[in-house]
Amino acid sequence: MALKTLSAKAAAALDRELMSTGAFSIDQLMELAGLSVSQVVYRVHPAEKGRRVLVAVGPGNNGGDGLVAARHLRNYGYQPTIYYPKRPKNDLYQRLAKQLEDLDVPFVDDFPTALQSTDHVIDAIFGFSFSGEVREPFPAVIQAMTETKVPVTSVDAPSSWDIEDGPPKSGVGSNFHPDVLISLTAPKPLVKHFRGRHFVGGRFVAPGIAEKYDFDVPAYEGVDQIVEVGPEGLKL
Amino acid sequence: MALKTLSAKAAAALDRELMSTGAFSIDQLMELAGLSVSQVVYRVHPAEKGRRVLVAVGPGNNGGDGLVAARHLRNYGYQPTIYYPKRPKNDLYQRLAKQLEDLDVPFVDDFPTALQSTDHVIDAIFGFSFSGEVREPFPAVIQAMTETKVPVTSVDAPSSWDIEDGPPKSGVGSNFHPDVLISLTAPKPLVKHFRGRHFVGGRFVAPGIAEKYDFDVPAYEGVDQIVEVGPEGLKL
Repeated sequence: MALKTLSAKAAAALDRELMSTGAFSIDQLMELAGLSVSQVVYRVHPAEKGRRVLVAVGPGNNGGDGLVAARHLRNYGYQPTIYYPKRPKNDLYQRLAKQLEDLDVPFVDDFPTALQSTDHVIDAIFGFSFSGEVREPFPAVIQAMTETKVPVTSVDAPSSWDIEDGPPKSGVGSNFHPDVLISLTAPKPLVKHFRGRHFVGGRFVAPGIAEKYDFDVPAYEGVDQIVEVGPEGLKL
Repeated sequence: MALKTLSAKAAAALDRELMSTGAFSIDQLMELAGLSVSQVVYRVHPAEKGRRVLVAVGPGNNGGDGLVAARHLRNYGYQPTIYYPKRPKNDLYQRLAKQLEDLDVPFVDDFPTALQSTDHVIDAIFGFSFSGEVREPFPAVIQAMTETKVPVTSVDAPSSWDIEDGPPKSGVGSNFHPDVLISLTAPKPLVKHFRGRHFVGGRFVAPGIAEKYDFDVPAYEGVDQIVEVGPEGLKL
């Protein structure tokens, strides 16, 4: 049985609802989302296989999830490096970056060079609110993630993919197929084009909310914040 | 080797530093603290041993940690019940309570009665900022937790204990010896009077901060947010 998917529009509405009537703060939700991402990396790429993790951080909430994930990974003993070329003057993102600086996590300006000395990549550039064209400086970053042999984990969406239709027909991202995807709260329609290892994370949705938005809360185990669901959201 | 302890004054200064120069929000810290508490309960009292958890919630941040823990436990499949007699008009606490209401977690007014139909108790009444007298309605609650056969997990401090000197010499709390204690960030001096299972949680302190406040970040494993350290903070 395939997991139901959540459209871009529904995902945006869900986020708004969680933060209004749901009474969550964005700090809380981002902390739990980023924690989920860190647990996926730990699961698919244990530190013994290489501690270096390069995190490509976009300008919005998907980037914020990446910053939180990097902090948790640092606390697990990984060595994250952050590529964060567009830093908005948003208080939350600035605080998340400061938390990494206090852990002596390096920030770098040259993604392709950093990619040559990492063991794993987190793609936290664009999430479910992405549409249209990939703006500078991210085309070259997505191209580098397309060509690298280093495994890539994408957060919520492979960056550049259309949330409904998947990879663009041509140009940047048309051949971008990350190894791992973590869908936050629920898979987006693009998962039908994804063939890697697929996880769902974000264990904070009340059953009533999931019912209202017509998606399934997957069967998390123990205290895990993630669950592997297989390609296309098939339950394993 | 005993873990170093953190005085009440130092713990308060650490909290202030984390939330100022450390750039953490209280939402973030409380989410991670409460998550730690939930993992301790899962570890010492798996759901198969009984899903009912009664959470005694105090009026401050210790209570907030308990509310967060209850939400995570609910998501793990436990059946928490909340006793929260003094609800401050603080936005964060109100939101944490609302998140529980949305999960259909019941709030009860009569602690001793609720205690008769639970499998585990979380004592989240007072934390490191407690001193002086136990105010109403909590003396009867602490007395009930003292007398019950149901295992009790205390958050940061057994409620009513002096943070430096441990159990009061007489009166309420003088015979209160919870089964489990989770020290948040670092044990407080009272642990020298504690003889149950002892955990440390709150995996968010940068090494530089721990060094400045002269305590040890314990050896967390994997993605665990907690580590068992043994009575008096002896490393196991």
